[in-house]
Amino acid sequence: MTRQPSGGTGTIRQLLERAAAGERRALGRLLSLVEQGGDVADEIAEMVHGQASSQAHSQAAVIGITGAPGTGKSTLVGHLVDGMTSSGARPAVLAVDPSSPLTGGAILGDRIRMDGVAGGRAFIRSMATRGHAGGLALAVPAALRLFEACGYGPLVVETVGVGQVEVDVTRTADTTVVMVAPGMGDAVQANKAGLLEVADVLVVNKADRPGADDARRDLEHMLDLGRITGQTQHWRPEIIMTTATTGAGADQVHQAVRTHRAHLADTGRLEARRQSRIHQEVLDRITRHLDTAASQYLSTQPDELTEALKGHKTPATAAAEISKHLLSNQPP
Amino acid sequence: MTRQPSGGTGTIRQLLERAAAGERRALGRLLSLVEQGGDVADEIAEMVHGQASSQAHSQAAVIGITGAPGTGKSTLVGHLVDGMTSSGARPAVLAVDPSSPLTGGAILGDRIRMDGVAGGRAFIRSMATRGHAGGLALAVPAALRLFEACGYGPLVVETVGVGQVEVDVTRTADTTVVMVAPGMGDAVQANKAGLLEVADVLVVNKADRPGADDARRDLEHMLDLGRITGQTQHWRPEIIMTTATTGAGADQVHQAVRTHRAHLADTGRLEARRQSRIHQEVLDRITRHLDTAASQYLSTQPDELTEALKGHKTPATAAAEISKHLLSNQPP
Repeated sequence: MTRQPSGGTGTIRQLLERAAAGERRALGRLLSLVEQGGDVADEIAEMVHGQASSQAHSQAAVIGITGAPGTGKSTLVGHLVDGMTSSGARPAVLAVDPSSPLTGGAILGDRIRMDGVAGGRAFIRSMATRGHAGGLALAVPAALRLFEACGYGPLVVETVGVGQVEVDVTRTADTTVVMVAPGMGDAVQANKAGLLEVADVLVVNKADRPGADDARRDLEHMLDLGRITGQTQHWRPEIIMTTATTGAGADQVHQAVRTHRAHLADTGRLEARRQSRIHQEVLDRITRHLDTAASQYLSTQPDELTEALKGHKTPATAAAEISKHLLSNQPP
Repeated sequence: MTRQPSGGTGTIRQLLERAAAGERRALGRLLSLVEQGGDVADEIAEMVHGQASSQAHSQAAVIGITGAPGTGKSTLVGHLVDGMTSSGARPAVLAVDPSSPLTGGAILGDRIRMDGVAGGRAFIRSMATRGHAGGLALAVPAALRLFEACGYGPLVVETVGVGQVEVDVTRTADTTVVMVAPGMGDAVQANKAGLLEVADVLVVNKADRPGADDARRDLEHMLDLGRITGQTQHWRPEIIMTTATTGAGADQVHQAVRTHRAHLADTGRLEARRQSRIHQEVLDRITRHLDTAASQYLSTQPDELTEALKGHKTPATAAAEISKHLLSNQPP
């Protein structure tokens, strides 16, 4: 493996040892490298993999939390993390949400409180939604494995539930919590955004506001109609009413998450989800390789591209011809 | 070209003729087919291309409007469309925003008003953000070409500015308007979400609210620091204060868009942007072909995948091996 200006194999191994021993700054540095992507991120992944293989498989729970902006995700995550640390766990949070107050957003009170938590047993980290080499799809699982290798768990991924990439990030969690709030990002809008189809647990936040009961009824109705199937058949997502600002309902959310995970484990589906997570990551990484090959080929200004730019061919025809050229015709 | 159950070549040609003659239902049907993607969508694209080649090149302006949810995009678009129709144009709007009131969202008053507009010279259409074969990246340019072939212009694409795919959709517009609002999706958050780097015109909406001047100052400051470069060098995005609920400032936004487009035309960059739009579409279509090939190969359960699922290989190693196998080694 080639040495990188940012470290080299020896330095990364040292960082990993220090992070595994509990040094927060070393973990922070590794997460930055993972977020940047590329060869160094791959090198870290290889080392974490080697280390994990020599340990007992820890199987930290992965919990996705998503919903429209303003539904109160970060505030609820704060209460969940409080509950987890109180019961002796070492949760880690990855906030893939440009507006998350967990990591420097709008709500100062929350930020201070979360800084207090972060100074203790929990680890909170934000990840930009843009600018990754290879994209969020690669950086998120790599960061989660790093957290797990350093003894953290449960692992919470908070994403804003707008945008296909962002919703897909939660698709591979063990349990996905979808939040709606009366008026803002309500049940109907969440359904349109494709959020409800990934829900294992449903939360109606701002339960004290007008319209909360309507939102709950809408969700019940969609469940009755079979429009929310969850990620797992034979599982009807529980609907929990919360008031994230006071923390009311947060314990029930945590309990519902544990109940769902126990259900997955009992039915053998936990392992199936983990396999599907690896399958998806292999596919995402192949996509990155193929995209690179396509961009490189286009940069040679092939005739098919020139014809499309001149309007002599449609983009569809040019793309079909170039794809045929790029792909190997060997049988699998 | 294979015949499809949904129509066949003859039917599509008829639909296209009726849509070009001004029949709104025929255009709506074609847009649905384009949105579904696949062979029928490609067939429509080929026919539109053939038709466009035989006509004078109309070059409708393409305007992207983006910003965080709740900044007032749809309301401003409504005023822009009003202004355009008053001056004799036939604008078309593609709202790629699950919460857009333009096409059935939250704000009833706006919906009624827009229905009124839509009954006249303008054409308003929503597009789901999920569930496309091939994704938004293919459906949006195809829909725009269809609008243009039917005599519509300017073409307005409204997207919610959260999520990489959604921001990228506006990247290929002639002019991209980025909206911020005090507090909600303000300048700093817009910058984090990668919105400012695509801005040709900046709008601070809710100019009557506290914090609007701060938002403006933040944007000016970022411009001074060179942190907003726009899509074009040597272009400093104008900052316009609006109150979308009353329509105040909408005319200035329209004027700023025209000024920007004239700048592009004068400097020869309009054609460059159009070429880059075609280049991007060719790349997006190649990506779709390559992704299909990758998924098909993975479905054969190759050894590399099995090894990764068993934990004997990292996803990175498995993906590198499979990519090597899939790609042709012929020199370009």
